[in-house]
Amino acid sequence: MQKIILAIDSYKGCLSSIEAEQAASEGIHKVFPSCQTVCLPVADGGEGILSILMEATQGSYIQLEAHDPLMRIRPTSYGILGDGETVAIEMARISGLPLLREEERNPLLTNTYGTGELILDALWKGYRKFLIGIGGSATNDAGMGMLQALGYRFYTTDHRLLESGGAQLAQIAYIDTSEVSPLLREAQFTVACDVTNPFYGPQGAAYVFAPQKGASTEDVRMLDTGLQHFAGIVHAATGTAVDTLPGAGAAGGLGGSLAAFFHASLRPGIELILDILQLDKLLSDADLVITGEGHSDRQTLMGKVPMGVLKRAQKAEVPTLLLSGGIEDREALNEAGFLAAFSTTPYPQPLEQAMQLDTARQNIRETTAQICRIYTGQKT
Amino acid sequence: MQKIILAIDSYKGCLSSIEAEQAASEGIHKVFPSCQTVCLPVADGGEGILSILMEATQGSYIQLEAHDPLMRIRPTSYGILGDGETVAIEMARISGLPLLREEERNPLLTNTYGTGELILDALWKGYRKFLIGIGGSATNDAGMGMLQALGYRFYTTDHRLLESGGAQLAQIAYIDTSEVSPLLREAQFTVACDVTNPFYGPQGAAYVFAPQKGASTEDVRMLDTGLQHFAGIVHAATGTAVDTLPGAGAAGGLGGSLAAFFHASLRPGIELILDILQLDKLLSDADLVITGEGHSDRQTLMGKVPMGVLKRAQKAEVPTLLLSGGIEDREALNEAGFLAAFSTTPYPQPLEQAMQLDTARQNIRETTAQICRIYTGQKT
Repeated sequence: MQKIILAIDSYKGCLSSIEAEQAASEGIHKVFPSCQTVCLPVADGGEGILSILMEATQGSYIQLEAHDPLMRIRPTSYGILGDGETVAIEMARISGLPLLREEERNPLLTNTYGTGELILDALWKGYRKFLIGIGGSATNDAGMGMLQALGYRFYTTDHRLLESGGAQLAQIAYIDTSEVSPLLREAQFTVACDVTNPFYGPQGAAYVFAPQKGASTEDVRMLDTGLQHFAGIVHAATGTAVDTLPGAGAAGGLGGSLAAFFHASLRPGIELILDILQLDKLLSDADLVITGEGHSDRQTLMGKVPMGVLKRAQKAEVPTLLLSGGIEDREALNEAGFLAAFSTTPYPQPLEQAMQLDTARQNIRETTAQICRIYTGQKT
Repeated sequence: MQKIILAIDSYKGCLSSIEAEQAASEGIHKVFPSCQTVCLPVADGGEGILSILMEATQGSYIQLEAHDPLMRIRPTSYGILGDGETVAIEMARISGLPLLREEERNPLLTNTYGTGELILDALWKGYRKFLIGIGGSATNDAGMGMLQALGYRFYTTDHRLLESGGAQLAQIAYIDTSEVSPLLREAQFTVACDVTNPFYGPQGAAYVFAPQKGASTEDVRMLDTGLQHFAGIVHAATGTAVDTLPGAGAAGGLGGSLAAFFHASLRPGIELILDILQLDKLLSDADLVITGEGHSDRQTLMGKVPMGVLKRAQKAEVPTLLLSGGIEDREALNEAGFLAAFSTTPYPQPLEQAMQLDTARQNIRETTAQICRIYTGQKT
């Protein structure tokens, strides 16, 4: 073994991605002392993508103030990746659920205005390339607030200018784009989006996600009607049919608007991260990939980190091992393409014990060493 | 993979040796459908060696009556191995602790007379080759009872003929061999003996094993004195110094007497079993050996089944994997020569769950399959 790539998701509540990989790397070096191990800080999109990308590329943060989901000014930040030209915005940092107290949650009112302000700020500063992570939103406004911050104006049939918030969607009759920032035309958007829910309907943004954002049953119905109505407006304004776009329902419909208005491509967060980390290039001369996570099963195949890693490795024809704290559904994992799947659990033990920091590290280190020993074929 | 030898100890309280191996074999065949798997019914010596040997060689049982440790006649049996010429005796079946009620345990009185009767019966029937398993004895008579059954007579200084039992040892002044069965001279003895305790002393038969056979502290002292005294008598009678012979203290000193009077070789039970199973021959064209047990750790290196299997495989230069329900001390196991050591535990779970029959089988099957998949290098 000359080079092994370690791309292990965090063992949630226990080890970070890098910590898990360092333990595996130690196990590898017990058997192959001179093997090059590449430790990649992978993790799925969700709410932590900004810090992952910033750490991976050694980017820099820009501090500013913007409006939170209830239009209160508060300090926030976005990032410029290490390439010096890509803006990374995590919408949850200004339009996210954690910014609200429990009783403030109300997707009829909350909006994505702040996310638009961050984009505008970066446009003014001269940036044109955007990565936007849209997990953890507090909103169901289909990006209406974001669009407003960028100059879009929404009117009712009686020409009344609309405010922001999910409740407004149903009232939109037409959009005035005359004040939209012209800088937007030069901008390129990629969106990290880990769900494939449609814009509206039983699997749409309102029915699936609005309840956790504070919507009552009646609110959900109203929001869904609003999204369905807005889909027609969007289609008329942009030519894009958001009602058939997978992921359009992400972040309360923000996914759909980013795609329709800004031609954003929606991609799984892990794909973006693996691009940024240049996994494909690293794979070109790798002998083996080890990926994993706290617990793997059939769910792993649904776009989790190990699956994203596997797809790249398969393309590069590099064998990929799955190394997780727990393993179920091994046949399905094998069929998906994992060469082999191993649990790091050394004997029947309680989960609390397995999740102790030193225990988890030791279990990863030792299981990795045993796997490497098989490759040696050596007996002593 | 053309041929894999499975020599897994029982997962105690859960799966027999063969059951564990069948599960592993299924795992192998998922990956290598045409691989030959050889399932060997291994288990350490102890109290079950007779049934293991009989099953392995398709031997036949001989039923008879003999004296139990308290000289009560009861039905018992011994075996003739599949070769038709080797007698297999498990001393515990007629001189063992399970034959006594708790309150009957008393190594001052108990004796090995019955074991001698079984040997005599086989000698009369024409057999000359003996395998004797000496685990689980109820006695501390240094084989005095066995010798009496075969014609040895023990006398005091005042020429009084002694009876049987541990308390008699200290009184022996000389041995009369004039009535010893002449058939014994033609007989060959091999003893399965899994302890290395000396005849007497702090690590000897009395101090280490007599308490569990019902001896009080005072009894132990008396028995130890008796063994020490008898060692001198044995030396005078046979020329063999049992006081320095490892294993002489097995089965209350029976090991020492078998060695001294019958030139028996004392060997670990697993070694005898592996001989009978012809492991060395099977190894000649094997690609891999998989051994294991319920739980492996540093203790495994002290003559347990996997260690016995490993030694043979090493000599034949066949890589050996350890596959156990639980694994600890992996570094020591690797240093001993196991190519790699894997736990079958798929995720943190309670021992009771892991020991459920179907769960244990599945865990073995799936872990084995994953290991085999590594050997394939195949990705899908």
